[in-house]
Amino acid sequence: MCIKRGMNKRLQHKYGALLAQAGVEINGANAWDIRVHNPAVYRRVMLRGSLGLGEAYMDGWWDCERLDQLFTRLLTAGLDRRTVSAVDLLDLLQSLLLNLQKAGRAFHVGERHYDLSTQLFENMLDSRMNYSCGYWKDAQNLDDAQQAKLRLIFDKLGLRPGMKVLDIGCGWGGAARFAAEQYGVSVAGITVSQRQSEYARAACRGLPVEIRLQDYRDLGGEYDRVYSIGMFEHVGHKNYRTYLDAARRVLKKDGLFLLHTIGSSYSLTRTDPWIERYIFPNSMLPSLAQISRACEGRFVMEDVQNFGADYDKTLTAWHRNFLKNRGRIEQAADERFCRMWTYYLLSCAGSFRSRSNQLWQFVLSPNGVTGCYHAPR
Amino acid sequence: MCIKRGMNKRLQHKYGALLAQAGVEINGANAWDIRVHNPAVYRRVMLRGSLGLGEAYMDGWWDCERLDQLFTRLLTAGLDRRTVSAVDLLDLLQSLLLNLQKAGRAFHVGERHYDLSTQLFENMLDSRMNYSCGYWKDAQNLDDAQQAKLRLIFDKLGLRPGMKVLDIGCGWGGAARFAAEQYGVSVAGITVSQRQSEYARAACRGLPVEIRLQDYRDLGGEYDRVYSIGMFEHVGHKNYRTYLDAARRVLKKDGLFLLHTIGSSYSLTRTDPWIERYIFPNSMLPSLAQISRACEGRFVMEDVQNFGADYDKTLTAWHRNFLKNRGRIEQAADERFCRMWTYYLLSCAGSFRSRSNQLWQFVLSPNGVTGCYHAPR
Repeated sequence: MCIKRGMNKRLQHKYGALLAQAGVEINGANAWDIRVHNPAVYRRVMLRGSLGLGEAYMDGWWDCERLDQLFTRLLTAGLDRRTVSAVDLLDLLQSLLLNLQKAGRAFHVGERHYDLSTQLFENMLDSRMNYSCGYWKDAQNLDDAQQAKLRLIFDKLGLRPGMKVLDIGCGWGGAARFAAEQYGVSVAGITVSQRQSEYARAACRGLPVEIRLQDYRDLGGEYDRVYSIGMFEHVGHKNYRTYLDAARRVLKKDGLFLLHTIGSSYSLTRTDPWIERYIFPNSMLPSLAQISRACEGRFVMEDVQNFGADYDKTLTAWHRNFLKNRGRIEQAADERFCRMWTYYLLSCAGSFRSRSNQLWQFVLSPNGVTGCYHAPR
Repeated sequence: MCIKRGMNKRLQHKYGALLAQAGVEINGANAWDIRVHNPAVYRRVMLRGSLGLGEAYMDGWWDCERLDQLFTRLLTAGLDRRTVSAVDLLDLLQSLLLNLQKAGRAFHVGERHYDLSTQLFENMLDSRMNYSCGYWKDAQNLDDAQQAKLRLIFDKLGLRPGMKVLDIGCGWGGAARFAAEQYGVSVAGITVSQRQSEYARAACRGLPVEIRLQDYRDLGGEYDRVYSIGMFEHVGHKNYRTYLDAARRVLKKDGLFLLHTIGSSYSLTRTDPWIERYIFPNSMLPSLAQISRACEGRFVMEDVQNFGADYDKTLTAWHRNFLKNRGRIEQAADERFCRMWTYYLLSCAGSFRSRSNQLWQFVLSPNGVTGCYHAPR
């Protein structure tokens, strides 16, 4: 016991010095400070890095009034870029910075890990069930921000009545429905989640929207426009070319493809282990260099917009809804689930507020549009 | 003689078949067709590729009424991407496609190769002597397009009175003058051309503009904003990181850097030999992947705009001015120089019209701006 206590003390000192560089104090009085309930947290972090820190939070070994502010501070201070030793908080922070966030879609987490019901998302997301970053430039609330995001995408694509449009990774069908209702286009939406496909079909009833249970590799047909919102984060760096080949194959020569994805500021091929285990299995954040390289010979990059800071607002709104509607969410009866979900949403919010992660919209054309492409903003 | 004639015939047949894929006929009646005056052109192209084709044009071995349309067709048809044999028109086209264009600045061509006087550029460029792509979105003529380009850049940077601004590669000082006059900022402009520095100093007299003869590697000081217009094409892929390090070193933490550069659709490390020898020694077009990779750990990419098609209009306007003012340009008394200059301007116009080359404006911030950056368009 004495040895353990000594070790805990030494580790506390070490991590304390590190955190101090970000203005974070162990057991301090600020909202972003860490309150340690179980001193074994230091060893857990030392041994298991990011995974240990997240799991320790889930288990109630430590607390923080404002996780979002904590992570913003840690990442803004760039602690991840200062090497101290092999397995320590730096490793954790680096992996957090690089791959903290994945807000693509629910089916992985839904099917493979948590078997979360749509109830959770209905009580957290906007009325159209957009599980991706909203556009807050002129928006005051989540619903407006999500609608503005859809308008931004469809205006960039120049949707006109009668066009055939493809939605790669259609989720619960909110974007497809909006496009059909507001722009008079027909939409084919694909998803690999049975549950989502059923939900989307119901949501789009009576509209020229076809929802298919299909992998992007099996895409056929020909479309005037293609878009993909928050799905690329599931593709994985080895498949970027295959994915872009599929999009190009089904796009008309004079068509446009809009790719909306979270991005990493660094070119990496690994995922944060806590996110991987508890939130998004098989997710991977692409870098601009990786996407650009994969586009060579496939697409001309017509426009790139970065509104990563809007994901902070989106995640914060989701967390607010989650807390507000907690009583209506079955899983939320479980305290450990609530702590996990809070940790996910707020650590990710911090990763965007610190500008460590990005949100990009790319407008791509197969051969370059004739004359200049001018993206609305 | 007989052997040579036979070889010319075979090569003519081979190149004729290739050109036909782009709708181009040897000795055809269309404005974009090639009229061959000396059948030795085929061998010259076979032996010397791009260099041979350009030199043969300079020597009057072949003609084309509309070189811009010819190159647009060849590149749009993607002839460069179909391999036929080791040294043939494909090699030429590939190198044209990949590195045809460099419109950065004049000092290389001015000092190292042609010793061109500013007279040529005064008679070709707009009144502010911008030797880079204009912004034609709402412009009707070259002067307006160049002014719109400068406004676009300075609005993206959010210039405010009193700011300290750095211009990397200031050319003849047109941009620095405009910034000081219109936005009330002070500007330091650097160039490696003695002649340009003298011209720029005179152009900016009476304004808070300091022009220095300096290499970017030697930059010091601290600036609120940094911009670089059409100079990155001279940096070379091995120096991209060094260049970005220099820009970041002198930029305030909350500053912005605007990089305006021609781009290649492919990641390459070579230059078209004709352009290299006759127009821009040591030039190299960067790809988006190369720039993005070099930005990692240095800058957050806030915005990317592509208006490559506007370079077609810019080059066409330059060529029009060149022809109109030919009598006032000393070098233009030489027919070979005129053919070379026309070949340069119009083949490049074709490379942009076909969308083979790109023109990018990047807005970069050292740590990501707080909240969202919204670029004006």
